Amino acid sequence: MTPIDELRAALPDGRVLTEADLVARYVHDEAEWASYGQPAAVVRPRSADEVRDLVRVCAKHRMPIVPRGAGTGLSGGANAIDGCVVVSMEAMAAIVEIDAAEHLAVVQPGVVNDDLRAECLKQGLWYPPDPASSPWSTIGGNVATNAGGVCCVKYGVTRDYVLALEAVTATGEVIRVGRRTAKGVVGYDLCGLLVGSEGTLAVITEITVRLLPARDDAERTVVGYFDDLVQAGEAVAKVSAEGVVPSALELVDRHCLRAVDDWRHMGLTEEGNVLLLGRSDAPGDAGEAEVDAMLRCFQEAGASWAVRSTDAVEADALFSARRLAYPALERLGPVLTEDVCVPRRKVPEMLARIQATAREFDTQIANIAHAGDGNLHPLIITQPGDEQAKNRALKAFDQIVDDAIALGGTVTGEHGVGLLKRRGMAAELGAAVLDMHRAIKKALDPAGILNPGKVF
Amino acid sequence: MTPIDELRAALPDGRVLTEADLVARYVHDEAEWASYGQPAAVVRPRSADEVRDLVRVCAKHRMPIVPRGAGTGLSGGANAIDGCVVVSMEAMAAIVEIDAAEHLAVVQPGVVNDDLRAECLKQGLWYPPDPASSPWSTIGGNVATNAGGVCCVKYGVTRDYVLALEAVTATGEVIRVGRRTAKGVVGYDLCGLLVGSEGTLAVITEITVRLLPARDDAERTVVGYFDDLVQAGEAVAKVSAEGVVPSALELVDRHCLRAVDDWRHMGLTEEGNVLLLGRSDAPGDAGEAEVDAMLRCFQEAGASWAVRSTDAVEADALFSARRLAYPALERLGPVLTEDVCVPRRKVPEMLARIQATAREFDTQIANIAHAGDGNLHPLIITQPGDEQAKNRALKAFDQIVDDAIALGGTVTGEHGVGLLKRRGMAAELGAAVLDMHRAIKKALDPAGILNPGKVF
Repeated sequence: MTPIDELRAALPDGRVLTEADLVARYVHDEAEWASYGQPAAVVRPRSADEVRDLVRVCAKHRMPIVPRGAGTGLSGGANAIDGCVVVSMEAMAAIVEIDAAEHLAVVQPGVVNDDLRAECLKQGLWYPPDPASSPWSTIGGNVATNAGGVCCVKYGVTRDYVLALEAVTATGEVIRVGRRTAKGVVGYDLCGLLVGSEGTLAVITEITVRLLPARDDAERTVVGYFDDLVQAGEAVAKVSAEGVVPSALELVDRHCLRAVDDWRHMGLTEEGNVLLLGRSDAPGDAGEAEVDAMLRCFQEAGASWAVRSTDAVEADALFSARRLAYPALERLGPVLTEDVCVPRRKVPEMLARIQATAREFDTQIANIAHAGDGNLHPLIITQPGDEQAKNRALKAFDQIVDDAIALGGTVTGEHGVGLLKRRGMAAELGAAVLDMHRAIKKALDPAGILNPGKVF
Repeated sequence: MTPIDELRAALPDGRVLTEADLVARYVHDEAEWASYGQPAAVVRPRSADEVRDLVRVCAKHRMPIVPRGAGTGLSGGANAIDGCVVVSMEAMAAIVEIDAAEHLAVVQPGVVNDDLRAECLKQGLWYPPDPASSPWSTIGGNVATNAGGVCCVKYGVTRDYVLALEAVTATGEVIRVGRRTAKGVVGYDLCGLLVGSEGTLAVITEITVRLLPARDDAERTVVGYFDDLVQAGEAVAKVSAEGVVPSALELVDRHCLRAVDDWRHMGLTEEGNVLLLGRSDAPGDAGEAEVDAMLRCFQEAGASWAVRSTDAVEADALFSARRLAYPALERLGPVLTEDVCVPRRKVPEMLARIQATAREFDTQIANIAHAGDGNLHPLIITQPGDEQAKNRALKAFDQIVDDAIALGGTVTGEHGVGLLKRRGMAAELGAAVLDMHRAIKKALDPAGILNPGKVF
């Protein structure tokens, strides 16, 4: 029997795909610039036991396993490796349980982020992590990459909500780590270790997440327009220095505004160059005070126009413009997405350096940012087919990574290392910490079959 | 040269203590029931480089290293091992930096928890984790055990506030893990892995913590007295089921109230049998609504008396009674401290089982609890010198651990495994997850010199 025949024998009918046209849908994520190989098969398991069985076959034959959610990743973490088995978790998409009394939910990895949020809301509960991919990306993928989003500035990232995981180890054991209780300190935080490990330490088969009470809908919005990117960055640094913790603080630059206007005709560019959107969900007077403070910070930083939005529909439209920025830019050509995160006071300087990098490498760089976190997404845009421009874009990418490290930042705020940030990760962490990574990888995946070549 | 002479040669004068009376102060933590050995020496380093130098000497001679904060632990994690070097971090007690703009502080491990909180408050910032030991325990010890406290029900545990760590590995390398930025997903969460690892993976030499804006002082308090422990537990389950997230929800039973009264004459036992204290720090109407909801839950669960406290001094006195409960009980004889955590809806049943266990093993069990987390601290009290009572207490301890696991809980909510919870940890986690612990331990501490025999 070939290894693929063994996989078929070990699993129920229909789980193993080898037809070229079907397999082609699973060979890479949205990191178009990263390389990818040709899988030997795609497997779509329906239970942890099936994952265990397929891992055992792969372990026996030392076939690499590439776990995969919806493939919305931006770092190449889910890109196929030649001869690998891509394990798509899309068919494990059940919300197993929402426990309103304990404020938790148990889900299979293939559940779409927005679907979980919607189900929780029906019970008066809120699952905060909200990556821009939330209409498509899955909780499993979110956990594997420790995904962020707009809410993080106040509510933290995916790891902050993962209470427990069921997973299959590299040797084919089904394990449970973490807990269902509010607190717990028994042993090492293996649950936290698996979160963000990008499929290199185990295949996650079930996730228990912590929920918060649903917020009321009365978020207050502050809208600021700035002539200049660095001024907007200064407003961000001021908000942080004031001690305000907004529920969102998002930046959209003129390249993004124009791309959205060209696509959706929203008239955004008529108002100004750079849009900064602040929100407060604090109740009552506390929320009023936060909005006042943000407005003052915007004005002091030199906003050309800054107001408190009194129109919820208008405010939501501006936030949807922020969400549309990425797909709007993708319409213009291949986009190489950055994801650096710097200390908040360094946001103005980092934005200035990004502009200098665009000039130096003669490339167009648009910016959207979870600005309140210092998490910037410079988007390097090239014309389709222009290989020289692609090379210049890659140099700009490296320069931005180096600048982020130089300013005390990190090379990836929320997208993960995947393939694209391996050089940056080595530069950021140094040899001794990389050695610790290798030691842990070898301890938990001695044969090196779980997503090899990713992260480090 | 003996190994101790090598330590003296590697370090500045005065760092290495071997005088019996000085060493005797460092041989155990507050887990009186756990065993401890005789150290070869106590070392009090003053820098990460000194820690590196001492670890290298210990590694060469395979001498066990037992890192130690203030020794307020309750699981024996800091207890000495025969022939070990106890590394006391008490002399590394500087607050290196408080960065108000970035909402973070950098501290050495010997900084006392309350001292950090006080310094942060001067700059309008708040370090939430508040274990009952906060006047004495150190941030290093808090990080090593992932300490909890009263605030956790709303604000989480120590791990939720640790952004970055400097540490010395078992092979004597100074490393930095984590970040100074608000977000970051580069590589494995080694920072989170070291938090709560109880000195078994590295010696922590510097800690960067995240801070929140200081709260205003207007916490609202709800006071409830119950005839019966299980009724109080039902009030807790109701509060959780209502979706209220109080800023504190603490339980103190009649044994504790009486012990505090006998010591401090506060008249607590005149009011009722079991005291439940709820707090809300939500501003404005939201806070009013939370207090109303808690009061209703207390009443529906059958409180004999439940009021909203209108007197801040009185409310603070009740919370200080909760803090005094443990030392008040210690005056009566050796206390064996439990630390189980169960799902919130199981709090009534767990309290009932604890009462049954007290009867079964003819032992007195007092209860204080971070009830809103389901984190219960049954305190098993014996008379000094009564060995039979001690044996019965140990059996009761095991029974409580087994009951917590049976109810879907964990054997340690916040105190750590140390020596006392090793059996419980093995029962809770199972063989495959314990094997993962051993693999990681071996990967990061191949010679097994860091706090060997603790945790697992």
